[in-house]
Amino acid sequence: MLTAAGCRERRTRLWDSLNPRPDWILIAAPQYLVYLANYFPSPFVFRSVNSAAVLILGDDGSSVLVADSMLKMFAGDSHVDEVATPTWYDGQHSAPPRGELLVQNVLQRLATCSGTSIGYESAAVPAGIIEGLRVARPDLQLTPVDGVLHRLKRQKDPDELAIIRRSMAAGDAAHAAALHGVRPGMTELQVYELVTAAACEAAGEQVLVYGDFVSGPRCDRDRGGPPSVRVIAASDLVLLDFSVVIHGYRGDFANTFACGGPPTAEQRRLYEACMHALAVGEQMIRPGVACRDLDRAIRDSFAEQGLAESFLSHSGHGLGLGHPDPPFLTPQSSDSLLPGDIIAIEPGQYILGVAGMRYERNYLVTAEGYETLSHLSLCIEQPVLS
Amino acid sequence: MLTAAGCRERRTRLWDSLNPRPDWILIAAPQYLVYLANYFPSPFVFRSVNSAAVLILGDDGSSVLVADSMLKMFAGDSHVDEVATPTWYDGQHSAPPRGELLVQNVLQRLATCSGTSIGYESAAVPAGIIEGLRVARPDLQLTPVDGVLHRLKRQKDPDELAIIRRSMAAGDAAHAAALHGVRPGMTELQVYELVTAAACEAAGEQVLVYGDFVSGPRCDRDRGGPPSVRVIAASDLVLLDFSVVIHGYRGDFANTFACGGPPTAEQRRLYEACMHALAVGEQMIRPGVACRDLDRAIRDSFAEQGLAESFLSHSGHGLGLGHPDPPFLTPQSSDSLLPGDIIAIEPGQYILGVAGMRYERNYLVTAEGYETLSHLSLCIEQPVLS
Repeated sequence: MLTAAGCRERRTRLWDSLNPRPDWILIAAPQYLVYLANYFPSPFVFRSVNSAAVLILGDDGSSVLVADSMLKMFAGDSHVDEVATPTWYDGQHSAPPRGELLVQNVLQRLATCSGTSIGYESAAVPAGIIEGLRVARPDLQLTPVDGVLHRLKRQKDPDELAIIRRSMAAGDAAHAAALHGVRPGMTELQVYELVTAAACEAAGEQVLVYGDFVSGPRCDRDRGGPPSVRVIAASDLVLLDFSVVIHGYRGDFANTFACGGPPTAEQRRLYEACMHALAVGEQMIRPGVACRDLDRAIRDSFAEQGLAESFLSHSGHGLGLGHPDPPFLTPQSSDSLLPGDIIAIEPGQYILGVAGMRYERNYLVTAEGYETLSHLSLCIEQPVLS
Repeated sequence: MLTAAGCRERRTRLWDSLNPRPDWILIAAPQYLVYLANYFPSPFVFRSVNSAAVLILGDDGSSVLVADSMLKMFAGDSHVDEVATPTWYDGQHSAPPRGELLVQNVLQRLATCSGTSIGYESAAVPAGIIEGLRVARPDLQLTPVDGVLHRLKRQKDPDELAIIRRSMAAGDAAHAAALHGVRPGMTELQVYELVTAAACEAAGEQVLVYGDFVSGPRCDRDRGGPPSVRVIAASDLVLLDFSVVIHGYRGDFANTFACGGPPTAEQRRLYEACMHALAVGEQMIRPGVACRDLDRAIRDSFAEQGLAESFLSHSGHGLGLGHPDPPFLTPQSSDSLLPGDIIAIEPGQYILGVAGMRYERNYLVTAEGYETLSHLSLCIEQPVLS
């Protein structure tokens, strides 16, 4: 749960970032309904199926969340001045198309509003709202705010960090469960089931776990992908790179280990090279560092060992409500690190027939440098089974 | 996977349902991108985080799916004439706000289109597309198609049924796993984990499982809700009402049983009343039946046993890409059953301090009557453990 003070502060920052300031702002992307209003309809509840909501912000500081009546349990947790929940399905009558109700309700509210300028999420607000406004109020000035929101969400607030830490603790626990629990004979899908159960147990609630769950030749051939029913053989590499979503926020950790047996000498060498690259990248994390320089340092680290050509991805990326989010740790990135950034660094090595592996930690960029947020054991070998 | 022929036929039905016929149709709701184009970005892959796509249909029968480059693996499975995947994030540069790219790409395509009329999903197409069109082409006529789509999706096609059957088979397996595997001492959350793993195993892939996982006093007090870390005690009722989502389609089955011990005599009586009400409802399923009559029959069945007041919900609802979907089995429903409807009937009894229970099967309405799609054992008692 984000705090009321945090949501208010983020709304203030949004207003302060807009010049000229519109009279109203319309928000509809799920990630920004969390960010600005703590509205998060769980994907594990039937009420959220095909649902949508709109946040109406006024220049006077007012905030109204419009969601339908089925969403009261989530809308009730939102931090806004007013929650409007027009009745969609009442259990007594047939229900109309769900989204039209939302469009009509928002339009009715805006029809009587004073002001002539509206900032809106061009990629997320339902078109019917803008079309209705255009018909009713041809004088209105409409300005997209997508880019402003995209920039604002980078630097995390304390209440966001608190949720991210919960997601990452669940990710740590799930990786530990895999490192200790994966055995030859299991399918990749069973590894996913084990990981998801461990993440739910650690979080104490249902969580969505997504990412890469591959083994054996899939590690170097595919480098990732959803789990298949492939059975893991002894000494297969198992590449796990996954995120645990809590209240819209996520971490993103990766580990690769040989299952139930020692890795080859070459696999061990590649692992050491990845760990070295990760350390090189870590040492550079502080505000102001150009992300392309950090990416370059990781590439140089691999190049020194003759492994430049087998590092086939970016060096990392930002995280939070999106994935990947800015900043981008890439050869031609235009980003520099900012305090409050959450970043993933994920060096990897992929050599067909030899190994595919990736190791990834997450960090908070602080005023002085960084804090490591992930605490999973990165190792190419499973602990000795007792 | 839906078939190319099925998607084409549904697009033809959409066109044939519009009078006057527009020159173009814009679709963006995830459920209709599945329905009309077989486009389904898995929630278990990072590429789908905060993603969106737009389907552009032309009066000449043409179909273009616009999604960004990160979504190629899903867009490649879509059944359309052309897939456009403008580059969002290339692993080399910093990436712009994701949704704006989609808006701009669709606008560019439409800028040069002939024709003056566009049908659009008013509740789902991104507002920036319509605002851009309004600026570039003030002569355009825009007409919502939300209601038409809402009606069309009710009667399922064979390729939709094939996916629904897979979802329901996984639901059956997951309910069986719960009936045989839930033990006193487990938490509700652990029941969810067990159920999810069983559903994934049966489906052979990652599936989203959502619904009600409650036990003991939560069954009669809350009547549903997400799993908590409450520990299930011996003889507690366990109420499980969940859906397994495969490629956007879902079933919805419920069962309630006493855990690790016999139910009380009163619980058994209520269970028998629910099973009788279910049988009464089932017998009425055939095309043309008014849904309010079916609802009435179930209420009458409970009333005969003095249990009218403790049946606290609707009698059922339609299912498929939505939940609940039409038809609605409610006292004042305006729907009648149609061949191809998928419906859930879910009688329940809720008496504080005594029991909360719900039993639910799913049916396909056929030309002659119905086919039962769910095959789970509905029972108030767990099988004797060997």
